[in-house]
Amino acid sequence: MEPATVRSRAGRPRATRGSTGRDPREEILDAAAALFVENGYAATTTRAIAERTGIRQASLYYHFAGKEEILAALLEQTVRPSVDVARSLRADDRLSPAAALHRLAVYDVEALAAAPHNVGTLYLSPEARHERFAGFRAARRELRDAYGALAEEALADALRGTWRADELGAVIIHLVEIAITLRNDGDPVDAEHVADACLRVCGLHEDAIAAARAAG
Amino acid sequence: MEPATVRSRAGRPRATRGSTGRDPREEILDAAAALFVENGYAATTTRAIAERTGIRQASLYYHFAGKEEILAALLEQTVRPSVDVARSLRADDRLSPAAALHRLAVYDVEALAAAPHNVGTLYLSPEARHERFAGFRAARRELRDAYGALAEEALADALRGTWRADELGAVIIHLVEIAITLRNDGDPVDAEHVADACLRVCGLHEDAIAAARAAG
Repeated sequence: MEPATVRSRAGRPRATRGSTGRDPREEILDAAAALFVENGYAATTTRAIAERTGIRQASLYYHFAGKEEILAALLEQTVRPSVDVARSLRADDRLSPAAALHRLAVYDVEALAAAPHNVGTLYLSPEARHERFAGFRAARRELRDAYGALAEEALADALRGTWRADELGAVIIHLVEIAITLRNDGDPVDAEHVADACLRVCGLHEDAIAAARAAG
Repeated sequence: MEPATVRSRAGRPRATRGSTGRDPREEILDAAAALFVENGYAATTTRAIAERTGIRQASLYYHFAGKEEILAALLEQTVRPSVDVARSLRADDRLSPAAALHRLAVYDVEALAAAPHNVGTLYLSPEARHERFAGFRAARRELRDAYGALAEEALADALRGTWRADELGAVIIHLVEIAITLRNDGDPVDAEHVADACLRVCGLHEDAIAAARAAG
């Protein structure tokens, strides 16, 4: 894609699919994710995002109100699919809580590991704390609570009463997010191993974990 | 401390203790940590750090070559004490590997939770990947390897051969670093619970964990 060619086009901002055949909104998000992860949110301008996308800055503003809205969409994308999977797994009563938890953790780790850019590295950035990103935080909280509810149901008897569900959920979602740190360090990510570790944190023995792994 | 008063002083930059009685180097690090965590590394200037410290910018450069050297010192401070504790615990043959691992995890979680500023939120920032911070990364790797070595020794028989020590160490250090995420979210941090979870990841049963907790 050549920015110069695209920038020379006159007329209305493109709302149709660009030269790559992808939705221009998705192209903008992809370019922004690459720049935010590589150089940081503060150091990235909407101009740089438009240039990398191969569109004019005005076209970018046709799709997004600004940089904050782009980051909000990117952060939400890192949790939204897993929130949906968590809902459908919790509604599926053929799966044991341990099997559902294992499957959710595998899905989530693989999604974080396979995303085109490691946007999770922005979770702890000062910008992500702002009010503007309340939607992302609410979605991540829903995912944490789904982990907490499944983990509480799966919990070994010996641990009942020692952990609150929200504390358990916080530990499990954090464990899953190791995919972000491993990617950042250039280390391989084994989703099955991480999901097994989530069940061990719940105090399950190896035979119960093997059964959950097979069913999940 | 009033920046105006200090800025009006003439002569050589202060190398002695400031008005608060603290080492000026420590005062600079404290002010920088507050600004980096609050506003981000890229958005913070050495001028802002000097102003918050209550010294002239020239005085700051008397102690540090620049912003990068300050961040390098801050990142290293988050892991160095735990690296030292890990070394002494591994040299102490009165402790079982599980007890040593538990004690190290409690120490490390409490250190991350009690530090004046949550500098760990900068671990995944793009700046921290630069060559300049190789010292920090080497120290964190040493800590990860200490966790990995202790965890491998403590590992339940059923898990032997399924995890490599470096993978185990990566999971345990990441679990300990939940203190950074919980602080960032404003949630309480229970160091004993996190340390217990580290031993559960090693496949230990509750009686073995209780014994390690009591000994550690």
